[in-house]
Amino acid sequence: MPEPGAGEPPDRHRHRLPGRGIVGRIVSRVHKAPGSPPGTLIHTGVRKVDEVRIRLIDFDSDSMEERTLSSIEECHGYAEAPRVSWINIDGLHDIPVIAALGDRYGIHRLALEDILNSHARPKVEEFDAHFLAIVKMLSFDEETDSVHAEQVGLIVGERYVFSFQERFGDVFEPVRVRIRDEKSRIRTRGTDYLAYALIDAIVDRYFRILEQIGDRMEELEEAVLRDPSVEVMQRIHHLKREVLVIRRAVWPLREALGRLARGEIKQVKEETRLFVRDVYEHSVQVIDTVETLREVLSSTLDLYMSGVSNRMNEVMKVLTIIATIFIPLSFFAGLYGMNFDYMPELHVRWAYPALLVGMATVAGAMLWYFRKNGWL
Amino acid sequence: MPEPGAGEPPDRHRHRLPGRGIVGRIVSRVHKAPGSPPGTLIHTGVRKVDEVRIRLIDFDSDSMEERTLSSIEECHGYAEAPRVSWINIDGLHDIPVIAALGDRYGIHRLALEDILNSHARPKVEEFDAHFLAIVKMLSFDEETDSVHAEQVGLIVGERYVFSFQERFGDVFEPVRVRIRDEKSRIRTRGTDYLAYALIDAIVDRYFRILEQIGDRMEELEEAVLRDPSVEVMQRIHHLKREVLVIRRAVWPLREALGRLARGEIKQVKEETRLFVRDVYEHSVQVIDTVETLREVLSSTLDLYMSGVSNRMNEVMKVLTIIATIFIPLSFFAGLYGMNFDYMPELHVRWAYPALLVGMATVAGAMLWYFRKNGWL
Amino acid sequence: MPEPGAGEPPDRHRHRLPGRGIVGRIVSRVHKAPGSPPGTLIHTGVRKVDEVRIRLIDFDSDSMEERTLSSIEECHGYAEAPRVSWINIDGLHDIPVIAALGDRYGIHRLALEDILNSHARPKVEEFDAHFLAIVKMLSFDEETDSVHAEQVGLIVGERYVFSFQERFGDVFEPVRVRIRDEKSRIRTRGTDYLAYALIDAIVDRYFRILEQIGDRMEELEEAVLRDPSVEVMQRIHHLKREVLVIRRAVWPLREALGRLARGEIKQVKEETRLFVRDVYEHSVQVIDTVETLREVLSSTLDLYMSGVSNRMNEVMKVLTIIATIFIPLSFFAGLYGMNFDYMPELHVRWAYPALLVGMATVAGAMLWYFRKNGWL
Amino acid sequence: MPEPGAGEPPDRHRHRLPGRGIVGRIVSRVHKAPGSPPGTLIHTGVRKVDEVRIRLIDFDSDSMEERTLSSIEECHGYAEAPRVSWINIDGLHDIPVIAALGDRYGIHRLALEDILNSHARPKVEEFDAHFLAIVKMLSFDEETDSVHAEQVGLIVGERYVFSFQERFGDVFEPVRVRIRDEKSRIRTRGTDYLAYALIDAIVDRYFRILEQIGDRMEELEEAVLRDPSVEVMQRIHHLKREVLVIRRAVWPLREALGRLARGEIKQVKEETRLFVRDVYEHSVQVIDTVETLREVLSSTLDLYMSGVSNRMNEVMKVLTIIATIFIPLSFFAGLYGMNFDYMPELHVRWAYPALLVGMATVAGAMLWYFRKNGWL
Amino acid sequence: MPEPGAGEPPDRHRHRLPGRGIVGRIVSRVHKAPGSPPGTLIHTGVRKVDEVRIRLIDFDSDSMEERTLSSIEECHGYAEAPRVSWINIDGLHDIPVIAALGDRYGIHRLALEDILNSHARPKVEEFDAHFLAIVKMLSFDEETDSVHAEQVGLIVGERYVFSFQERFGDVFEPVRVRIRDEKSRIRTRGTDYLAYALIDAIVDRYFRILEQIGDRMEELEEAVLRDPSVEVMQRIHHLKREVLVIRRAVWPLREALGRLARGEIKQVKEETRLFVRDVYEHSVQVIDTVETLREVLSSTLDLYMSGVSNRMNEVMKVLTIIATIFIPLSFFAGLYGMNFDYMPELHVRWAYPALLVGMATVAGAMLWYFRKNGWL
Repeated sequence: MPEPGAGEPPDRHRHRLPGRGIVGRIVSRVHKAPGSPPGTLIHTGVRKVDEVRIRLIDFDSDSMEERTLSSIEECHGYAEAPRVSWINIDGLHDIPVIAALGDRYGIHRLALEDILNSHARPKVEEFDAHFLAIVKMLSFDEETDSVHAEQVGLIVGERYVFSFQERFGDVFEPVRVRIRDEKSRIRTRGTDYLAYALIDAIVDRYFRILEQIGDRMEELEEAVLRDPSVEVMQRIHHLKREVLVIRRAVWPLREALGRLARGEIKQVKEETRLFVRDVYEHSVQVIDTVETLREVLSSTLDLYMSGVSNRMNEVMKVLTIIATIFIPLSFFAGLYGMNFDYMPELHVRWAYPALLVGMATVAGAMLWYFRKNGWL
Repeated sequence: MPEPGAGEPPDRHRHRLPGRGIVGRIVSRVHKAPGSPPGTLIHTGVRKVDEVRIRLIDFDSDSMEERTLSSIEECHGYAEAPRVSWINIDGLHDIPVIAALGDRYGIHRLALEDILNSHARPKVEEFDAHFLAIVKMLSFDEETDSVHAEQVGLIVGERYVFSFQERFGDVFEPVRVRIRDEKSRIRTRGTDYLAYALIDAIVDRYFRILEQIGDRMEELEEAVLRDPSVEVMQRIHHLKREVLVIRRAVWPLREALGRLARGEIKQVKEETRLFVRDVYEHSVQVIDTVETLREVLSSTLDLYMSGVSNRMNEVMKVLTIIATIFIPLSFFAGLYGMNFDYMPELHVRWAYPALLVGMATVAGAMLWYFRKNGWL
Repeated sequence: MPEPGAGEPPDRHRHRLPGRGIVGRIVSRVHKAPGSPPGTLIHTGVRKVDEVRIRLIDFDSDSMEERTLSSIEECHGYAEAPRVSWINIDGLHDIPVIAALGDRYGIHRLALEDILNSHARPKVEEFDAHFLAIVKMLSFDEETDSVHAEQVGLIVGERYVFSFQERFGDVFEPVRVRIRDEKSRIRTRGTDYLAYALIDAIVDRYFRILEQIGDRMEELEEAVLRDPSVEVMQRIHHLKREVLVIRRAVWPLREALGRLARGEIKQVKEETRLFVRDVYEHSVQVIDTVETLREVLSSTLDLYMSGVSNRMNEVMKVLTIIATIFIPLSFFAGLYGMNFDYMPELHVRWAYPALLVGMATVAGAMLWYFRKNGWL
Repeated sequence: MPEPGAGEPPDRHRHRLPGRGIVGRIVSRVHKAPGSPPGTLIHTGVRKVDEVRIRLIDFDSDSMEERTLSSIEECHGYAEAPRVSWINIDGLHDIPVIAALGDRYGIHRLALEDILNSHARPKVEEFDAHFLAIVKMLSFDEETDSVHAEQVGLIVGERYVFSFQERFGDVFEPVRVRIRDEKSRIRTRGTDYLAYALIDAIVDRYFRILEQIGDRMEELEEAVLRDPSVEVMQRIHHLKREVLVIRRAVWPLREALGRLARGEIKQVKEETRLFVRDVYEHSVQVIDTVETLREVLSSTLDLYMSGVSNRMNEVMKVLTIIATIFIPLSFFAGLYGMNFDYMPELHVRWAYPALLVGMATVAGAMLWYFRKNGWL
Repeated sequence: MPEPGAGEPPDRHRHRLPGRGIVGRIVSRVHKAPGSPPGTLIHTGVRKVDEVRIRLIDFDSDSMEERTLSSIEECHGYAEAPRVSWINIDGLHDIPVIAALGDRYGIHRLALEDILNSHARPKVEEFDAHFLAIVKMLSFDEETDSVHAEQVGLIVGERYVFSFQERFGDVFEPVRVRIRDEKSRIRTRGTDYLAYALIDAIVDRYFRILEQIGDRMEELEEAVLRDPSVEVMQRIHHLKREVLVIRRAVWPLREALGRLARGEIKQVKEETRLFVRDVYEHSVQVIDTVETLREVLSSTLDLYMSGVSNRMNEVMKVLTIIATIFIPLSFFAGLYGMNFDYMPELHVRWAYPALLVGMATVAGAMLWYFRKNGWL
């Protein structure tokens, strides 16, 4: 059995299917070399798109412009103008582009490192001119019952919001729709509200995931009561672990949102905080629900185990009853099958019927005993 | 096995029986589209009544008026007058009515969203002119041993209390009776005391639920000791989960009441806080009891499992004893049933009785051995 | 199976034997109607004495008077005089007496409600002229191995201490003895010290309960090692639950004593706090011990389960050895018991002894194999 | 079965062997009567020495005097002189001596009570002229694998340290050696440093206990993997409980040392605090290790249980294979042993060899099936 | 069975293979004698290198010098000069060298004691002229699946950093490479940044360990699903414990880094703190991952146990089916093998075929029953 050794090239892992086992989603397979300087920019995730795509939305309460940019340089004019500019970057593997962006806007190297590290913990971190937010976007693959986390990084400055995604996603589409609507509140607010709206869109998705997991749980629970097969048990175990992925995404997010809501990040204005508190509370609710689902899953497993042990008992009882009745009877049959010359009973005429009656009596007595003891 | 896919219309869920499984009561099945603007008003619950019913009680220490309103507009005259006005709205599906109310009284959209979301977490939230309280009303269905939570939302202003319920309920009836009584304390106090009285009425109910669950537990426990059937075990498991529903309602409520009691919400006057602290302590007591009941239920399950494994042991012992005694004896019987020409023992006259005596001795020795080892 | 329905009269429960099951001691069976005004005075416990008994001790450092009062009115002269007056009331069912007392001394209705509710949580609560303390007096019934909690309520004013007990008890007798002694410290101190002395007398009792439970545990543990019967296991389970009753009494008490010790209640003087801290630490020690006892009980149960599963294994091994040796031998015996015309072995002279030798060899080989595998 | 009743004299317990079971080391068997005045001096432990021994060391940086005192009165001259006086008292049963000491140095009665109560929780408590420290000295009895706690009480004043031990011990000997050394740091410091040195000597011992327990664990673990007997399992259970005794000693000690290190006790000088923080950290490390050892023990028990259940499976498989092969074959042998007149097969010449071949085929097929399913 | 007694020389342990069992890595086997003065310098670890090696790097933004020193005296010129001097010492057994160093730089004896004690807890401690940091360097031995911790001690002054390692290691090599690079940030910063870089290099390694453990877990998990052998189970148990070693290293480190990040240590400059917060967050992430891995391992063990119990059930079912079908049939065969003179059935011509048909019917009925009950 070949074992992955320390000396093997890390590339070996890069081509593993993402999300095959839960361990691969918990433990980063790719990381910068230990001891390399902080802020070393390498994309520590699986490359999920071929090309980096940059989309810009630039708006204030009066006007709005929406474009796909062909190069990152194009965005500078927008980002430095007074209107709110939202630059969304899909794909994190083009390091020079991201490094250039960082240099231009004075984004701290550590912030860029976090954005590129797809195993970073959700957090908010304040810098001089902007703040960084790391959030996990979750999805549930109904095929394999597995939860996947994509990382979203936000750099929120006075006039610009940069959002970094690992692949093209449509989770922000509803926010775009709202921005396009002239009368929507988002048009009159600043970048902090936009950042809130993006985080809120991501957190809202969590409820959908919980619902999907809930549906799966109901199916499995029914299956446990109806027909507790090994496969069902393994699926419950599997689901219980998958919930760990959500947990890892939400617990630190809650902490980060709590900091935003308490006003620890100066870029978040007073009037936005009420909204942030709302999304904070949603994160708390997700945690509550996740913990409850875990308890329900544990209880379902207990139920399964009890069911299995119960069936086993039924099986053993049947065996015991049959064996206990027939083994003694067989002994007596064997006894009178012996070939001793001198066995006087054999020659008595009523011996055979008497033996039959005796055997029936013994069997009846045993059945009565079993019934009395509740084994039947 | 058809699986609920992401693409299926959410309406499929809307017609599920509420409370069929616990998962359905934990995970919201209906929610606003992810990314929709905060404060989007949709009723994220099951429509439980056909018509919205609005009841008004308007009182001060001198006089009292009680009416059923046919439209929400009628309440404005009352709510803005100096007397305390309590407007109770049963049924949450008529969004325009609630939105109009919100606009008129400057109720924040996020507050309305919480009121309409029947999976909101219990909480209190302060706004400029009023505060919001979300509380869960619990009921126990003795038919199915299940705990159901209805949401109650309160908007408490200087002169008005709006209470929103999912369906017609009578939990507030005793409060109405007290208001009708001219000499009762509630007539002399403000809206904060009224809000306290409403929350207190809800929390008082929790004790009744705990009692009902306690009764069921005693039944089941007796059953476990008397006759540990699979069905009993499943019911205990079921009950243990149902308690989770109470937990989810009470833990956040305690937090919210704690904030009220510590005076973090400015609308609650000093003299009302002693009462709030009382209901806060009741919530703590409910939590204490819930946790203790959970431990007792776990212990009952352990007892069940021990009982089952014990019976199993009894069964196995009987099998072992019977088999261990008779299998060797049968062998000897079989031995002398062989048809070899040359088997001298068969022709000895005392061989048969000797064999019988030998067999009896062996059986006796084994019984003695079993007794010595405590198997009998 | 008739089930207790919501519609049944609560009186049905009132006549249940107290303490029959633990659930009945955790969940209040009797309570005020939900929604009834706060401070509604009803005795929510089992009536444990026929008559209310009122005893007075009135003292200062110079003199002491001790009386049994025939009516509550008699105490007023004492309570309002400068000497320390301790009025002990046994029996809580005479609501008018208690209500009158409350009115006379300005005891808050919520305080009276707590005193009358025998399921109130231990706590201290400060009011203007006095403070309320709710403490649980525990006793251990050696007959049924069950822990019972009686509620003691204290109202501690500047010049009076009212103590309310559910039934006649002698736990305060040693305090009386000390008051009678002219030289004792208690004579020179105020009501706060008296209150401390009363609470200390109650908490001291807890250690006695722990000792009784410890004795029972030692018995059961010995029984587990000597002869692990089902009954022993059930008793351990039972004891483990009973410990929950102590926990419910002590955890909140610790919190309450902590508040007293930190000086949060202004009626407790600086010089008394050192003593309060001492009883606070006793409560912490009780909690420590309770938690340790719970762990020891869990471990005893694990030991029991291991013992049972071990015996089961022994039993199964015996069965397997016997069956594995004799079933094949029986087959061969059966083989040569067949009645085929043409079975040449039967007519060989040494066939029978050879078969016997062969059988012995097989049996011996199996025994050797079992021994090698450690089954014997 | 005689049960220890409430009415039995407490003396019955006094003669129990200390440390026989863990319960006896957790629950105090002897205590002052509930309700007796605080500060009642009785020795609530087992009398472990016949005579009280008092040793004095009196030193400053220049000189040192070491004596055994015949009566407590002799120490006063030393204790009140400017040099540091350490008076060590072995044996706690001579109440008048200790009471006299308390009176002379103004030691609070509650402090004395704690010193005499061998089940007191480790703590530090500040008084006017001195502070009290209660620490547990642990020892591990390799004979019985049990952990014993002896109580050490320290009264640390400006010029004196009184140390109270339950029996003659040598744990403080290294400290004496250091005091005798003229150049040691301890000679130049005050009583607070001496107290630190004494506590440090006690805590250092804990590491030795942990090592002893670790050694025992390694033995048992090896035994579990090599030969999982019931006795080994019981010893692991036993050890897991013994660790509870350490826990009970160290958790509160950590709290107490934390208070000392944070400077909450005014008698501990700034320059000593760094040292106290060091011993504080040792206590944290002991706790860390204890918790890890507990986890390892739990895991060893799990391993044992898995091993047992595995062996059981092996046994059952053998039984099943043997029975499944031979029971059907025996049936066929039995079939042709029947004595029906008309059984044509019996008279066919090749019937017997054919049957033998058939039987061998069936047995072979079954073996193949078992191998395919991984049962062999 | 010889048991390690208290009286055995501690040397016995010194030659044990390190890391053989986990207990040996948790519990220190060598320690200073209890009661010896604080700051007694002995190396409480296994001597891992033969010779002490001292390497110096001395740099500022302009120049850099790198040397291996033959004696510790050589470093003084560097350490006291204004440039940043990093002196790395591999090997801790040469006490006089380390003591001399301590005397020269005023390193507190307690700090030196911690550096030499290879079981010290990770921590930071502030002294006047420098601060001490204790960190654990982890490695994973793929041969034995065990995690080893080496201790690294740092003394960070204004102009010097002393690092102490137990053996030659290359974990700091990347830092050296960065220092050699003239343009790297590390050249322009002070000793606090260098200390951060060293700690960061160590913590970065932890992720590699987690990856290695993750790989092993995936292997084992696959094995559990494919072929749940005892050996696999033992390896999972083993791995679960090994994770404890990481836990013990990281939990206190997180606390220590938190203190650094919050600025509690004055030697860490404001501009370095952002970097420290980054490594702090890495430590939190390691903890998160460790806890999740533990849960996954537990779940894998549960899966294993379920798999085993399932196979057992399969085995038992086969036994039961075979026995239940053939035991009754054998009885009837035995019945007609009896030798009674008067057994009329034997002489009926169709009796034998009728019996065969009857037997087939019974067997068929039983199979039908088993299928109906889902046993087949």
